[in-house]
Amino acid sequence: MTAPWRPCSVGDMMKDIDTPALVVDLDSLESNINKMSKIVEENYPNVKIRPHCKTHKCPNIAHMQMNSGAVGFCCQTITETDALVNAGINDIFISNQIIGLRKIRRVVGLAKIANISLCVDDADNVRDIDTVAGDLGIKMDVVVEVHVGAYRCGVNPGEPVAELAQLITELPNVNFKGLHCYQGRNQHQRKEGDRKKEVENVVALVKQSLEALSKRGIPCEYITGGGTGSFKYEASSTTFTEIQPGSYVFMDVDYGKNLNTDGSFYNEFKNSLYVLSTVQSKGTNPNRVVVDAGMKALSVDSGVPLLKDFPSITYNIGGDEHGVLTKMVDGEQMPKEIDELKVGDIIRLIPGHCDPTVNMHDWIIGLRGDKVECIWPVAGRGPGV
Amino acid sequence: MTAPWRPCSVGDMMKDIDTPALVVDLDSLESNINKMSKIVEENYPNVKIRPHCKTHKCPNIAHMQMNSGAVGFCCQTITETDALVNAGINDIFISNQIIGLRKIRRVVGLAKIANISLCVDDADNVRDIDTVAGDLGIKMDVVVEVHVGAYRCGVNPGEPVAELAQLITELPNVNFKGLHCYQGRNQHQRKEGDRKKEVENVVALVKQSLEALSKRGIPCEYITGGGTGSFKYEASSTTFTEIQPGSYVFMDVDYGKNLNTDGSFYNEFKNSLYVLSTVQSKGTNPNRVVVDAGMKALSVDSGVPLLKDFPSITYNIGGDEHGVLTKMVDGEQMPKEIDELKVGDIIRLIPGHCDPTVNMHDWIIGLRGDKVECIWPVAGRGPGV
Repeated sequence: MTAPWRPCSVGDMMKDIDTPALVVDLDSLESNINKMSKIVEENYPNVKIRPHCKTHKCPNIAHMQMNSGAVGFCCQTITETDALVNAGINDIFISNQIIGLRKIRRVVGLAKIANISLCVDDADNVRDIDTVAGDLGIKMDVVVEVHVGAYRCGVNPGEPVAELAQLITELPNVNFKGLHCYQGRNQHQRKEGDRKKEVENVVALVKQSLEALSKRGIPCEYITGGGTGSFKYEASSTTFTEIQPGSYVFMDVDYGKNLNTDGSFYNEFKNSLYVLSTVQSKGTNPNRVVVDAGMKALSVDSGVPLLKDFPSITYNIGGDEHGVLTKMVDGEQMPKEIDELKVGDIIRLIPGHCDPTVNMHDWIIGLRGDKVECIWPVAGRGPGV
Repeated sequence: MTAPWRPCSVGDMMKDIDTPALVVDLDSLESNINKMSKIVEENYPNVKIRPHCKTHKCPNIAHMQMNSGAVGFCCQTITETDALVNAGINDIFISNQIIGLRKIRRVVGLAKIANISLCVDDADNVRDIDTVAGDLGIKMDVVVEVHVGAYRCGVNPGEPVAELAQLITELPNVNFKGLHCYQGRNQHQRKEGDRKKEVENVVALVKQSLEALSKRGIPCEYITGGGTGSFKYEASSTTFTEIQPGSYVFMDVDYGKNLNTDGSFYNEFKNSLYVLSTVQSKGTNPNRVVVDAGMKALSVDSGVPLLKDFPSITYNIGGDEHGVLTKMVDGEQMPKEIDELKVGDIIRLIPGHCDPTVNMHDWIIGLRGDKVECIWPVAGRGPGV
């Protein structure tokens, strides 16, 4: 397989990068990582930070977070876990179910060289993990996922949690480590009060599960969950022992819509991630500027990107390889700034949703100001294996 | 950079493949490729087939199409062009503008070892290509893109086409090869009559451009365009000399909505492409079955995938790594077939849109019946460089 083309060299200027390309502003990235550590250290000293790898899938950024006090990482896939273990990060919680003996063998194999735990919500799956762990001569840490409102994976709170934990305690090659209680939708409740209230609901369900465990005499000292939008509430709950924020390193248009209590936009963390795109065609019409980043460079599941330097211009998807700036056919006039753009110019797009956008790229290019300082592989990229 | 994990071995059965994974049914793929050749050969013997690489991005499939009579390939990106040239395919038309000296050098470099042409719609870009071609000692074939209704790239039909062609004829290192006239939206007009009428509009604009060229005495014997939804109309126009179908090799849910004149679904070509996904969790509710393919494995820009073997079940996006089958929260009952699905079972999803879905995967696994016969790299995958 051909190695992916490197879109630039270290020392190049931003204008020299082959587009579309994913770039990170290193000053903002470092600021975001340090800010998260500071907030948690100062306000919630008993809570640990286990950032989520699914945002960046990039060992280089993971090491920056480890150096800033993270205790380890969350991963969503075996590919991400492989990438971090290969890079020497040796404490990983896979916040997802791993199904089937083939895949379980890969995870248990990694657990022979690193501290790996994984999610479970199904008795047969727990038995499969126990069998493979026995075969490979290791005891695997497993974490019960609780359904706390996401209507996705997880067992119901309370008794069903205790029942699955009981099974785990009775099997020889698995160890009940604790509970995974994550509600993705809570991150994107726009009003701060709503985010807080939703986490209170989650905490009530966690407590219900802890009581059921307690009745059976099963100790549980590890409760993990929370993300960039809600982590302060999990961290202040005194129930959660660990938070899993991911998006705070990059932020995106969607997170930019969250509000503080006073109605102002939540901007504790800065946008650091951009897709660079080149003006490819000015077509034949003042209402149309075509850029070279389309659906293969930007995930539009949570809305279209914003233009960092031209906030009044609208980006429209123009297919797999194209974006069309502002309205396409309706005769509306372009904002005046459009006159400044000419074929060959580079624009910076703030992605609508950072995680799946990163997953489309092979490289994250680190910029210090306008200069390329590093080119990092998105080593955990993939369809989700 | 870590090489991507191979999701199976040749000789494995479908149930053994690590999911989510992209698979192609080889019988259907071969049938589609042969059918296209037969239709064109029997009905439009003067029209050449230059399939589009952007659908599969896979040299192995490209060679199957070459062996079935294709004259060469269309590519949309330099990455795709690199992949095909590396695989020995030496006649490629890049149906896109290549902007900036760095990228132009890559294309002109490839033209030293293969027959490469590319699109232009801007005088300065033509001059850049001429300069680089002069530097590298070659004459580059360029094709003027005509804006025939897509409101994207291209110069306006008629006089503007002739004006740009004139510039090309006056420069020493570029050769005016002909016109690119493609309208993507026409492919997806649901009614056959509408597709036909839209292509008639395109043909009128092409003729207008040919007249303008003729007035200046500029010969033009190459008109390329058309896709899977419209190719019969371009092919029968007597104006187009070449068609560029791509999606016919795989088809998808979106193409499946196109109709014939009698109102029946257009099914000349078969769905051959699937995303395999494993049931990961049955959760705690009869209304919820979670599978392991989400937005990282399936592009949902043109709608969600269909379940090949359970047509009454609805797939809903459940995030980056999850899909949730049928309704999520509304208490509606699952169809009876859902009872058959258990954790670990594999389902086949027909992608909503084939091109960007393929772009999320590193491998296309070829299945003969239920058995893995080949594992092909998606060598042209990337964000669009």
